[in-house]
Amino acid sequence: MTNKTKRFLLPEERIPTQWYNIQADMPVKPQPFLHPKTHEPLQAEDLFPIFNEECSRQEMDCTHRWIEIPDEVRDLYKQYRATPLVRAYELEKALQTPAHIYFKNESVSPVGSHKLNSALAQAYYCKREGVTNVTTETGAGQWGTALAYACRAFGLELAVYMVKVSFMQKPYRRSLMQTFGAQVTASPSMSTRAGKDVITAAPTCNGSLGIAISEAIELATTTPHCKYALGSVLNHVALHQTVIGLEAEQQMEMAGEWPDKVIACFGGGSNFGGIAFPFMRHNLAGSRQTEFIAAEPASCPKLTRGKFMYDFGDESGYTPLLPMYTLGHEFQPANIHAGGLRYHGAGVIISQLLREGRLRGVDIEQNESFKAGVLFARTEGIVPAPESCHAIAATVREALRCREEGRSEVLLFNLSGHGLIDMTAYDSYLSGDLVDFAPSDEEIERGLAGAVSL
Amino acid sequence: MTNKTKRFLLPEERIPTQWYNIQADMPVKPQPFLHPKTHEPLQAEDLFPIFNEECSRQEMDCTHRWIEIPDEVRDLYKQYRATPLVRAYELEKALQTPAHIYFKNESVSPVGSHKLNSALAQAYYCKREGVTNVTTETGAGQWGTALAYACRAFGLELAVYMVKVSFMQKPYRRSLMQTFGAQVTASPSMSTRAGKDVITAAPTCNGSLGIAISEAIELATTTPHCKYALGSVLNHVALHQTVIGLEAEQQMEMAGEWPDKVIACFGGGSNFGGIAFPFMRHNLAGSRQTEFIAAEPASCPKLTRGKFMYDFGDESGYTPLLPMYTLGHEFQPANIHAGGLRYHGAGVIISQLLREGRLRGVDIEQNESFKAGVLFARTEGIVPAPESCHAIAATVREALRCREEGRSEVLLFNLSGHGLIDMTAYDSYLSGDLVDFAPSDEEIERGLAGAVSL
Repeated sequence: MTNKTKRFLLPEERIPTQWYNIQADMPVKPQPFLHPKTHEPLQAEDLFPIFNEECSRQEMDCTHRWIEIPDEVRDLYKQYRATPLVRAYELEKALQTPAHIYFKNESVSPVGSHKLNSALAQAYYCKREGVTNVTTETGAGQWGTALAYACRAFGLELAVYMVKVSFMQKPYRRSLMQTFGAQVTASPSMSTRAGKDVITAAPTCNGSLGIAISEAIELATTTPHCKYALGSVLNHVALHQTVIGLEAEQQMEMAGEWPDKVIACFGGGSNFGGIAFPFMRHNLAGSRQTEFIAAEPASCPKLTRGKFMYDFGDESGYTPLLPMYTLGHEFQPANIHAGGLRYHGAGVIISQLLREGRLRGVDIEQNESFKAGVLFARTEGIVPAPESCHAIAATVREALRCREEGRSEVLLFNLSGHGLIDMTAYDSYLSGDLVDFAPSDEEIERGLAGAVSL
Repeated sequence: MTNKTKRFLLPEERIPTQWYNIQADMPVKPQPFLHPKTHEPLQAEDLFPIFNEECSRQEMDCTHRWIEIPDEVRDLYKQYRATPLVRAYELEKALQTPAHIYFKNESVSPVGSHKLNSALAQAYYCKREGVTNVTTETGAGQWGTALAYACRAFGLELAVYMVKVSFMQKPYRRSLMQTFGAQVTASPSMSTRAGKDVITAAPTCNGSLGIAISEAIELATTTPHCKYALGSVLNHVALHQTVIGLEAEQQMEMAGEWPDKVIACFGGGSNFGGIAFPFMRHNLAGSRQTEFIAAEPASCPKLTRGKFMYDFGDESGYTPLLPMYTLGHEFQPANIHAGGLRYHGAGVIISQLLREGRLRGVDIEQNESFKAGVLFARTEGIVPAPESCHAIAATVREALRCREEGRSEVLLFNLSGHGLIDMTAYDSYLSGDLVDFAPSDEEIERGLAGAVSL
């Protein structure tokens, strides 16, 4: 093996200069966002009160296939990009699979995950537009950490609402955001009407991304020169993440292979879209037939058990209505450790692509995800984030299928982050305390009652 | 800045194939190790009961300038090496310094520090020699984590004695070692005579590297097919770490510069030697005049306030007597967060080089180290390990001196690891709770009373 290349590296000049906007290539464009009250289709301008203007325009852009990465953003990308593409020889050996397993290692980002790719872009646009304060939510804390560093890099103040269960499970993430200079509040909090409403109704509520988003939006819309930034779900976030897949495409060519399957974990869809869309463009052009697998937690199964409906992105209904696969914005996901996957809805682009059968969702139980994560740690040396464990588990399933079928497929997954700040989750798994959760059909029906059929 | 290169990367084929053994080039060779009882000089064979044979030979090797890196080790190096050399433009800007600051980023190792460079080598040699079980000590946990992964990679069982104060301060490190499959015990423990002796005398003892080493050696020497592995101090460990400096040398050439100062934090000396020795060989050959700065904690100042004497490497006197700068093997360092620097003695090679004035020690207070670490995090995005913060603080001092003097020097420091698992330390710093410690002259004299004048 000594003469085989393990890591495929790109020099700085080959870091992409443009993001890929899959909306331009989609044969059926996503349905429009709707006004929460009037149900009228929205324009980019309608998002300006919440988001910075450039991201609002990117959100609705169905015409420009390539969007320039601003020099200031690309310059900070150079602190960690291009990230390595790695051939997981040791994992292959352990699984005795004829499959070739590659992973894109986004965990080498200084904040430990892919989230920085969009955080830097969003912070930059805010700065350029004269915004001084930014608000956001964070689940497991990966997004909040990334945005905390990005805001610091561009001289912006950041307030983070952190889902309470993660705030308690992951104190190191809170410290990390504070080290970068952000202000962190557990959500639901008493600092917003949205938070107060939840606490009043359910004082022991552990929070959810939906609630935290409501709190962050409320703060943004009631504070001068303040905008809200979201870490997933929206189209512009996935757009920024395509830097992952665009690099991976060049690196797969260096390896002389092309993926048969592209696999990523699925929360709101930005990490999935980030690695998948650049490869999917060749499918859309008819030149490739790659399969795409989105690994979601069995406890929050919007892709496999949700419905395509119009729904709010947050708990309190502050966002526009989004056309998406959803479990309902009032669905309360179980307290799994993969906090970044505890979200009720799927991104708008991905929801449309899923309707057309261009990707496939798979459900992964918590214990299966950590089993795969520990195997990965012991073979490739990297302890994966609980979210990323879902992608690894889906990859292991495929690799074992390849072994059974005697097929040598090429599997590529995105290692979205490392789990060094999630060790309590590994403690639970190793001590056998980890519980699997799957909602009953009744719970899903109850959640969906809050979504809007149009 | 956009067209300037930030990260200097080496392709896999330029990962060094040999380590650099500075002992071959030293004009005055280190004094011999002595038998703890007879005080007779030791040969490599005398170390076989404790260490694997190859490392024992490397320890005493004063003739071979270049030592082959085994293919099996180099192959696993490829999982993370070559590590990037980074130009810290954002840090320079924040300091308004004309200095050019570079850092070698060892924090991208999958276990988060440089320690893996020697762990993989030691585990490989153990495996090759038929060893089945390995013991070690760990302070902050960086070494234990690295060896846990290395032992897993080569199919060896590992027992780790973790200094009690770190065991309590850094539970995630414990989890991490367990995730890699190691057995972890807080030291002092009741599982060894050495540990029992300490607990009997001082039931609330927080432990030290010296005590943990005694426990690990005792277990190794009383267990069949079991060897002890050390993460710093010894010559063979620094030898394996020279892969850092040998890469950095190539990368500085890519950058078209040569360091005026090479800076590293100092615990036992392996991270310092790893980056310094390859550059120092040009000083020894008379072709360069680089300065070398070892940053030690003010609370454990063996380089600046210790004495050059013969002393034991461990608390209980199980090791040979080593000729080194020491505070005495019974010196109890204060409970600083940089657990990896809480060691009473300096490596034998470095001690000899320090006697000859070929490097300089500087003392850094805990608060100064974290102040520099937070600045680094906020400018370069990487939260440094508390140990590495000492190197950064020393670099900041030099950069500010450059600013005062209007000199554009080239500074290179080793970022030995990240601090993502040390966030409680940052919490303490940010909340103003962090205490500075420096031993009194009496404490140092008391410690030195246990060292041996020969």
